[in-house]
Amino acid sequence: VTGRLVELGQRSETVRRANLSAIVRALHVSGPLSRSELVARTGLTRSAIRDLVGDLVAMGLVTEGAAAALGTPGRPSRVVSLDTHAAVVLALEIAVDSLAAAIVGLGGEVFASTRVERPAGHDSPDAVVADLLRLVTEVRTGREDGPLIGIGVAVVGIVRRSDGVVSTAPNIGWRDAPLGERLTAALGAPVPVFVANEADLAALAEHRRGAAAAADDVIFISGEVGVGGGIIVGGAPLLGVAGYGGEVGHLPVNPEGRACRCGSIGCWETEIGEEALLVAAGYPPDGGREAVDALLREAIGGSVRARASLERLGHWLGIGLAGLVNVFNPRLIVLGGRFGRLHSFVRRTIEAELDARALAAPRALVSVVPTALGEDAPLLGAAELALEPLLADPGSVVGARSADPAQAGFR
Amino acid sequence: VTGRLVELGQRSETVRRANLSAIVRALHVSGPLSRSELVARTGLTRSAIRDLVGDLVAMGLVTEGAAAALGTPGRPSRVVSLDTHAAVVLALEIAVDSLAAAIVGLGGEVFASTRVERPAGHDSPDAVVADLLRLVTEVRTGREDGPLIGIGVAVVGIVRRSDGVVSTAPNIGWRDAPLGERLTAALGAPVPVFVANEADLAALAEHRRGAAAAADDVIFISGEVGVGGGIIVGGAPLLGVAGYGGEVGHLPVNPEGRACRCGSIGCWETEIGEEALLVAAGYPPDGGREAVDALLREAIGGSVRARASLERLGHWLGIGLAGLVNVFNPRLIVLGGRFGRLHSFVRRTIEAELDARALAAPRALVSVVPTALGEDAPLLGAAELALEPLLADPGSVVGARSADPAQAGFR
Repeated sequence: VTGRLVELGQRSETVRRANLSAIVRALHVSGPLSRSELVARTGLTRSAIRDLVGDLVAMGLVTEGAAAALGTPGRPSRVVSLDTHAAVVLALEIAVDSLAAAIVGLGGEVFASTRVERPAGHDSPDAVVADLLRLVTEVRTGREDGPLIGIGVAVVGIVRRSDGVVSTAPNIGWRDAPLGERLTAALGAPVPVFVANEADLAALAEHRRGAAAAADDVIFISGEVGVGGGIIVGGAPLLGVAGYGGEVGHLPVNPEGRACRCGSIGCWETEIGEEALLVAAGYPPDGGREAVDALLREAIGGSVRARASLERLGHWLGIGLAGLVNVFNPRLIVLGGRFGRLHSFVRRTIEAELDARALAAPRALVSVVPTALGEDAPLLGAAELALEPLLADPGSVVGARSADPAQAGFR
Repeated sequence: VTGRLVELGQRSETVRRANLSAIVRALHVSGPLSRSELVARTGLTRSAIRDLVGDLVAMGLVTEGAAAALGTPGRPSRVVSLDTHAAVVLALEIAVDSLAAAIVGLGGEVFASTRVERPAGHDSPDAVVADLLRLVTEVRTGREDGPLIGIGVAVVGIVRRSDGVVSTAPNIGWRDAPLGERLTAALGAPVPVFVANEADLAALAEHRRGAAAAADDVIFISGEVGVGGGIIVGGAPLLGVAGYGGEVGHLPVNPEGRACRCGSIGCWETEIGEEALLVAAGYPPDGGREAVDALLREAIGGSVRARASLERLGHWLGIGLAGLVNVFNPRLIVLGGRFGRLHSFVRRTIEAELDARALAAPRALVSVVPTALGEDAPLLGAAELALEPLLADPGSVVGARSADPAQAGFR
């Protein structure tokens, strides 16, 4: 009989954890919700919501407002809000031509953020970490935020999730760089550091609170110099065995074509990367964002060469996207980074290629849209990554935090 | 207080269902297990396993053997087995050049099966359904199986999972064929009919009990005339919005290449399909499996032309697989159907292309292996699909069945 009671207790604890997580996730993604809305969102009963919200109030994660009449029949329903200062994370981004840092609270509120442009270069991981430290100091100076529970890092390279090693980042010249370890040491942070690919994290952010918030099967594609991809399958990020998944820029679309930075030939990146766009329009291959902006101004002004280069880009974008539509049957394709800025120029070409090349059934179900979060999508995704342990198990993080007050900050 | 008790009851029921499912799935995939092994597999306590197994015995789904000494310290542990006759499913397959039917019990045991070759042709869905009915009669004649709980159908086309409409099946000439509806009517079956793509189901079967049983990130690729694909991401089948996902044969690998049956140009299928292999070796494009077998005999005999065609096939297989490795970071690539039979001929070429073209980090983690289940993989996957409701919720299916004895059979 004792065994049965213990077991019942264990089972209930498992369910309680899942239910607390469901409530915190709903509030995190949607903002304040009435108890009635939480009932509708979670499928839990009214009494369960009352009890669980009570638990979350006791943990200091949520607050309840006064009951508000909703203009609908029945009792007024109290509004439940996350305390966005109850836990914060540090989000960092290492892009090709900029570094960024932000302090983000529960609920995704950005309390402070900064970004510095830098020449697209091949700085060592140590130099980049030193630059990031300055940004962290800047972004935290003069602030009194809630307890820090994690650090998320978006990096323009493919990353082993388990330890934050950047396996390869051709656009910044890194190979097997132990970024997670270096950052942990440099920050002296007694909280976990999570490193991931920037496009994977942008996809996560767009799925949580951006262009893809209503879709569970999503392809995000972005890129400045190169091409990045992040994929959501059935509501969950596609990671693969080690977190390397999503590298759509290295699908072979033209095996007799140009050499790719990755060592292969004719990867999609060689046709839709920045270099191909610029060269076809008569710009230097390494002209960067300024050259792309100039090219777009030329196109608006009617330049045949600029327009032909954009047409060519749209053609190759459509070819590759048609293949991804066939493989993933996605609801949404979100164009981020440079592709987001180009979307209005290449939209019709992309749609025509999808009509011509994708299988009719999945093609009919997909839409192509530009990013809603813009340039900050990877940084916001890094924050989401660092918040994930709390979202998955609200009690454990709060418990761990309060058990060790030293975790409330870092040097 | 009443609310709390009701809620506690609901929570416990949710967990009980999940736990029953975990036990039945473990037995279904692995065969008989001792109670101790079930403890290790499920993470549940010994007392929970005892109670839950008791429930499953009461439902008639499992039996317990006498306690057997295991040669290890501690009490002997009783062996728990599924009653493979407690529930059976009917599995059907519509391939390009054959039809098949099987009666499969819980645990995946095949009680009876039959396959008939047929000319690769463009029979109407009604004609195919009529032929399937004859196979069903044949496979059931003289048998006294347990209650039928579902029908699974593997078809060589892309399928809307929700209603079993075959959106397009170019290799048998179907378009928007309501196969699920027709089969339900023709079979007069009071059990659900589940239709899905044959490669998706082959991937499911290889993941459950075949070459990919130990891997959670898997790409299965097969094909006779065309090319089929089925993908497992994080342990779950990649379906996409409507179930159309996995069509890797229609990735664009050569956009200046040949016209594809799907209407696009240069799909992977145009380079690795049967026709390309045969034509390059001097065989008629529609020579079918006999011609492929003759080509392989020629290659074994030293024919330069046959060997060059296989080399070419391996080259293009490797190119596309490199792209899939970059996108999915899979643990395993399983070659089924014709690719399984060809594996030993093209293995070295594929591996060399992966070395040359895939990103180093995901490439290092992937292996390419031939199918373990062979030609019957789609049929076994169809059985798995039909068994899924019982595996997910053992109580519900048993309850529904016993509430309506008429469901024990069909005309």
